[in-house]
Amino acid sequence: MLTTIGFDADDTLWHNESFFRLTQDRFTALMADHCPPEHLHERLLEAERRNLGAYGFGVKGFTLSMIETAIEVSGGRVPASVIGEILASGREMLEHPVHLLPHARATVTALAADYRVVLITKGDLLDQERKLAQSGLGDLFDGVEIVSDKTPEIYRAAFARHGTGADQGLMVGNSLKSDVLPMLTAGGWGVHVPHGLTWALEQADPPTGHRRFHEMADLSGLPDLVCHLAQGHKT
Amino acid sequence: MLTTIGFDADDTLWHNESFFRLTQDRFTALMADHCPPEHLHERLLEAERRNLGAYGFGVKGFTLSMIETAIEVSGGRVPASVIGEILASGREMLEHPVHLLPHARATVTALAADYRVVLITKGDLLDQERKLAQSGLGDLFDGVEIVSDKTPEIYRAAFARHGTGADQGLMVGNSLKSDVLPMLTAGGWGVHVPHGLTWALEQADPPTGHRRFHEMADLSGLPDLVCHLAQGHKT
Repeated sequence: MLTTIGFDADDTLWHNESFFRLTQDRFTALMADHCPPEHLHERLLEAERRNLGAYGFGVKGFTLSMIETAIEVSGGRVPASVIGEILASGREMLEHPVHLLPHARATVTALAADYRVVLITKGDLLDQERKLAQSGLGDLFDGVEIVSDKTPEIYRAAFARHGTGADQGLMVGNSLKSDVLPMLTAGGWGVHVPHGLTWALEQADPPTGHRRFHEMADLSGLPDLVCHLAQGHKT
Repeated sequence: MLTTIGFDADDTLWHNESFFRLTQDRFTALMADHCPPEHLHERLLEAERRNLGAYGFGVKGFTLSMIETAIEVSGGRVPASVIGEILASGREMLEHPVHLLPHARATVTALAADYRVVLITKGDLLDQERKLAQSGLGDLFDGVEIVSDKTPEIYRAAFARHGTGADQGLMVGNSLKSDVLPMLTAGGWGVHVPHGLTWALEQADPPTGHRRFHEMADLSGLPDLVCHLAQGHKT
């Protein structure tokens, strides 16, 4: 039985990574006098990885990691004006308009009619709330969980709280690592909808031969898949 | 009837503002060549207020506001090494050990035996989770809500979710502005336990003559007060 559909938000319902890439390009240009682009990206990614346990996911931690990287790669010579520009680009990310991905509204609307639909997202609390409010999708969801990480335990708790348990739940998202694999471990269905841009720290290999794993090019096919699963045509 | 007790966390169950003050003192020392202390505090507070809508509450936003202030007051002349020190002091805040306030454990333990107890706190998601885990109090709570702001609507939703509604709930905390006044507006009891240090943006006047408002010097008196309220000795 399938009762509850969980949606990831960033790059599943609306654009996100593209804003990070634009900011990273701006960061690269700002730092051009101090560091070649490839080396800068590598050092930034190292800082993000190193800081993940302290900062968690989201724009504020990303901004702090950019500043740290700017100081590091310049040997402490980056001018304050450049740091000011980095701060400004971080604040702009926190104000960017929300652009829904194709089929996002129609798919959530269709599934909300027959299933419990829950938004499960990680990132900065306030920023994720802002994006949900601006998306206009807020009223469609029966529950919203903004979490610090996406683990099997988190999915078990979220689908118990808002649904009838993870084994009767399906999670859809663009990240195999965060949206699909831990949900399969929790006993639910995992549907991967790839997005052209994926952050390096979200890369993972797809599961092989898992009977509850599905993949689709965009969200438009999800209502049909859910209908089939709910009727037991596939398990 | 009183069924559910909500606890604020920072400076109600464990020390918090003292770490902000220590960091601010370090910031003042770092900036001594660029700005007199009083002016620096004023500008930092302005930055925090201005950025609250974008950054929300918590250490990451505080660190970003310190960096912004350092650039501003120095007219863009602050060296990158000082910014690096500010970053480091922010990271240290995210790693500081949790020190419980007097009577915190005993009070939560006593009330958890007879009531639903819920932790309701604002701040950075991951940081608040870390502090709760380190506090050793996590298992005592029936529910935990980490929220982006504390409003009457937030309290109505949290006490509906974890209890039997805000009118049968009591919120205890050190901030009149965040813990007490919005809970009274939501129809519940509000108990103020002042802490010696209160952030300027949390200052508020106490309510006058509100029958559901109580104040006490520390948490040790809370179980008796709750017992009286539950028995209807006071309303």
